[in-house]
Amino acid sequence: MLSKRIVIIGGGFGGLYAAKNLVKSGAHITLIDKRNFHLFQPLLYQVASGGLSPGDIASPLRAIFKRYQQIETLMAEVLDIDLANKKVKLADRELGFDYLIVATGSTHSYFQHPEWETFAPGLKTIEDALEMRRRIFRAFEQAELCQDPEQRAAWLRFVVIGGGPTGVELAGAIGELAHYTLKNDFRQFQSAETEVLLLEGGPQILSAYPPDLAQAAVRKLNQLGVTVKTKTLLTELDAHQIKVKSGDQVSHIRTETVLWAAGVKASPLGAILAKASGAELDRQGRVQVGSTCALPNHPNVFVIGDLAHYTFKGAPLPGVAPVAMQQGKFVARWIRADLAGKNHPKFRYFDKGNLAVLGRNAAIAKFRRLKFRGFPAWLVWALVHIHYLIEFDNKVLVSLQWGWNFLTRKRGARLISQKSDERS
Amino acid sequence: MLSKRIVIIGGGFGGLYAAKNLVKSGAHITLIDKRNFHLFQPLLYQVASGGLSPGDIASPLRAIFKRYQQIETLMAEVLDIDLANKKVKLADRELGFDYLIVATGSTHSYFQHPEWETFAPGLKTIEDALEMRRRIFRAFEQAELCQDPEQRAAWLRFVVIGGGPTGVELAGAIGELAHYTLKNDFRQFQSAETEVLLLEGGPQILSAYPPDLAQAAVRKLNQLGVTVKTKTLLTELDAHQIKVKSGDQVSHIRTETVLWAAGVKASPLGAILAKASGAELDRQGRVQVGSTCALPNHPNVFVIGDLAHYTFKGAPLPGVAPVAMQQGKFVARWIRADLAGKNHPKFRYFDKGNLAVLGRNAAIAKFRRLKFRGFPAWLVWALVHIHYLIEFDNKVLVSLQWGWNFLTRKRGARLISQKSDERS
Repeated sequence: MLSKRIVIIGGGFGGLYAAKNLVKSGAHITLIDKRNFHLFQPLLYQVASGGLSPGDIASPLRAIFKRYQQIETLMAEVLDIDLANKKVKLADRELGFDYLIVATGSTHSYFQHPEWETFAPGLKTIEDALEMRRRIFRAFEQAELCQDPEQRAAWLRFVVIGGGPTGVELAGAIGELAHYTLKNDFRQFQSAETEVLLLEGGPQILSAYPPDLAQAAVRKLNQLGVTVKTKTLLTELDAHQIKVKSGDQVSHIRTETVLWAAGVKASPLGAILAKASGAELDRQGRVQVGSTCALPNHPNVFVIGDLAHYTFKGAPLPGVAPVAMQQGKFVARWIRADLAGKNHPKFRYFDKGNLAVLGRNAAIAKFRRLKFRGFPAWLVWALVHIHYLIEFDNKVLVSLQWGWNFLTRKRGARLISQKSDERS
Repeated sequence: MLSKRIVIIGGGFGGLYAAKNLVKSGAHITLIDKRNFHLFQPLLYQVASGGLSPGDIASPLRAIFKRYQQIETLMAEVLDIDLANKKVKLADRELGFDYLIVATGSTHSYFQHPEWETFAPGLKTIEDALEMRRRIFRAFEQAELCQDPEQRAAWLRFVVIGGGPTGVELAGAIGELAHYTLKNDFRQFQSAETEVLLLEGGPQILSAYPPDLAQAAVRKLNQLGVTVKTKTLLTELDAHQIKVKSGDQVSHIRTETVLWAAGVKASPLGAILAKASGAELDRQGRVQVGSTCALPNHPNVFVIGDLAHYTFKGAPLPGVAPVAMQQGKFVARWIRADLAGKNHPKFRYFDKGNLAVLGRNAAIAKFRRLKFRGFPAWLVWALVHIHYLIEFDNKVLVSLQWGWNFLTRKRGARLISQKSDERS
């Protein structure tokens, strides 16, 4: 008998955990990703702020699976999925499957304003992070060159849109840069003159946290020179200024650097799957899946991670790494049981809590009824991240780089790379 | 009395050593570079082959000088130099100087074929190295995807043009990848099937070395799967094949990856200086300078490093880091003596020998009459490079990464970054 074929699309947390847990299934596994590496996305903001290099948080997918001959890795883009004939279409090839796991995640969304992307880069890919890094450090360099005080202030004003964990981590990292790392680096200004504005449309930043923890985060951000404005909406944006609305009050703010951490939308494969299976898409473009993460009427086709809308205890699960990991592992177990003709398992989500980091050595953490903050929360954050990095073998370097940065407050990866069309 | 103004253009080895040795001169120093970092160019080939991240070999210039208030660093492009009025022109600013040091180095040259750059990237900047890395690792990925054996062989054939140290190091690094690092990574082929061709126009690779050492290098390269072809000229080049001429014999070679390590030309500031001062330019565009590195009739304007044509004992000094460092240090001493009204020093070049690395643990070294090779030469190479990296504070990380790579043969920085116009 030929072995069964499992195709996994996407090498993020969901796809990787599915693949790892299918190694002993006896099936032939093909992992397809547009990129040749797994990206440890939770640390992407550290690349954007010059603390880590891209290579520190990216692991080559085929290096992870090199020992397993039954896992084949392809760097390719999936153009279409034919559910009726059980085929995945690449540019010049088709792959048949018995089981399919789609885990292509999400990208940032500018809602009704796709034109904003040029002025306010988001943070989902390595290239995004390098573009942010380029803009952040270029702004400081331009401030040093600039001889007009108002224009200098505009270069030293950073606006972060969106008060979720990414926005908070970015704003904190820029505050940290301005107050510590870049101290004494400039001759025309003090880097502590830097202003960081964190704008949030809702009534509270970090809405997944209880109000007292969010308040503690605001205080810590203030210490790093970050001004938090809630109930504030961005209404206009160009290369040199923004217009924001807070209640009835409209204000213009001059700034040369706007960073986007506001919205996400699901990968376009979601719409293809929804159309082919009759599944519904939610507002973010996520596919509504059943209790086994499968599509309606296609028990062998699974959607997991940020691309899936999975209702658990009456609410959709959030788009965070632990959900993707647990779903990947669960789907692998389900397939192994199916292949072995055993009873299928049921998915139970285990909430591992929330952690958000604030600058160099503080964080807030919530685990069920337990709440904590400050240095202990930061320590938990660091240990949790190092633990997960272990599996992708970058642990040694990242922890060393962190130890080094922590002791010296230096940031070695501050280089302003040029865009390829500006090469000289 | 106002302090004297020294302007240094270029933050490479020459400019950096000049600045460091002028710290105590009492003058006000402005260091101008297009980029915000010093690049440790001798290790650029390791970025191109995925062994190191760009951040590992780049040091922010203003971090190097943060403690010295008398040194101002500007990230800007110099558009013109007005020798008569002693002014350096930036985009929207002019800087006056009493002493000027120009050390803007060189870039790669495609001789009469600028159109070749698209098909065969060179290796002078971080972006160049990332483009090479992208092409090298993409070729292996395409070979895995590809189902036509001839096309797969073309993806697995790498051609390096130019048998100088850079070409030899690149070819050795790709051989190392194919034979060790990527072993077992692919399912459709054995990575040892990879062919690396190193093409050299002259009769010997590594022309700065005696023939027996060059022969030893060829043998070591052969062990890594590299075929060395001397007296072979590239005559045509497109995206899928090359045409080469060896004596009367012309051959076509299918390949998807051609890397350029053949020629250099000096930075365009050389021509501006030559025109303004009456200095001569050599064939590579380098400025002929006098015994103090100064321009004719402009004793306070110095050209050093790869941009200078300095005749020493009847021959021009080579474009290598030790020359730039020694000239930077010398010019600083000359200016300090001048400021103090003391006798001017004379430049004496101290030849520190030559070192070229061949794969993971071999090198060849020549120091005056002393020649050695193999692992001892590699150890010297590693120690020398770490020693120079000390000053730029990346030593710890680089040596750790090397230790790690050496033990595991892994390469963590293998990511295929996309060009910015291909972002998804």
